[in-house]
Amino acid sequence: MEALKRKIEQEGVGVGQEVVKVDMFLNHQIDVQLAIQMGQAFCEAFRDDQVDCILTVEASGIITGMTTAMAFGNIPVIFAKKGERRNIGSDVYTAEVYSFTHQKSNVIRVSRQYLRQGMRVLIIDDFLANGAALNGLISIVEQAGAVLVGAGVCIEKGWQPGGRLLREKGVKLVSLAIVDAIEDGRLIVRKDG
Amino acid sequence: MEALKRKIEQEGVGVGQEVVKVDMFLNHQIDVQLAIQMGQAFCEAFRDDQVDCILTVEASGIITGMTTAMAFGNIPVIFAKKGERRNIGSDVYTAEVYSFTHQKSNVIRVSRQYLRQGMRVLIIDDFLANGAALNGLISIVEQAGAVLVGAGVCIEKGWQPGGRLLREKGVKLVSLAIVDAIEDGRLIVRKDG
Repeated sequence: MEALKRKIEQEGVGVGQEVVKVDMFLNHQIDVQLAIQMGQAFCEAFRDDQVDCILTVEASGIITGMTTAMAFGNIPVIFAKKGERRNIGSDVYTAEVYSFTHQKSNVIRVSRQYLRQGMRVLIIDDFLANGAALNGLISIVEQAGAVLVGAGVCIEKGWQPGGRLLREKGVKLVSLAIVDAIEDGRLIVRKDG
Repeated sequence: MEALKRKIEQEGVGVGQEVVKVDMFLNHQIDVQLAIQMGQAFCEAFRDDQVDCILTVEASGIITGMTTAMAFGNIPVIFAKKGERRNIGSDVYTAEVYSFTHQKSNVIRVSRQYLRQGMRVLIIDDFLANGAALNGLISIVEQAGAVLVGAGVCIEKGWQPGGRLLREKGVKLVSLAIVDAIEDGRLIVRKDG
């Protein structure tokens, strides 16, 4: 998606060899116009897949989760919760997700009440690196007996294996931008990705 | 706001004497249409206040933070992050927030880069109970030398002191619905609130 690629090149920052810092428009300060455009791009990519609901994970997945749901005509969004919660109850699907950013393991949870058998689910998240979060969400879709339509991520880190592994598994994966490398603090975005 | 009040009465559940469970439409599964209407209601309430940006806190504050920003014509949203983060850097404003729901203290952080002196800030959050989160966000606005336009919350717990204390401090506080009590698992919503 061109607008996102330009934004990453112009404003994103690479920190060290690993960290893609886009918190000036994606995951701390939000460029709402761009978020809306990303939602429209996901909707375009999955338009023919009869999506019933969006599944994402807190916190920053909610942003494009919301705008994608809007592009689909305000279908429901379910966001998985991290960690122990008093309010969510015990009737949940769970998956363990290791976060390389925060260097710890999180359990994510989705209430069985909202994700039901046969629902056609589109997973949306902001980042794809090792695929830990997406695989956790996919596991939850499978536990629910729901149908995984595919997954959309805003930014895929091209040098990490998550994207390749998901495509090899046959998941319909749409990455709006792929960052292939960090060079002297600049983010190198794949042209045809 | 009538649509929200109806939704709370029809679908919300009170657990014990304290917990207002609205995760079927607000903070786990999201009713996107209602979230849009809530954003429009906040925009209506603060229309003449020259709002430059929305400040909220992850995770569920992002939902109506986004839709409020959209109603204002896609102004920026900044969401405070909880806990230690590798990506956000050390150049941050911080505040300590005790969460009664999760029974622990969180440090919330906002990068100094995005919240700047003189900006006119509208704080949005999903819940107001004791006011811990709102007071943390207000402290961050003050640290930045920004201007607090006011605060909008989706649901205020009328039996907890946060709303009263903020109004006594002179904060322009808009609660779209006030839940006054839990009676046999039913949520009692204030009619004229």
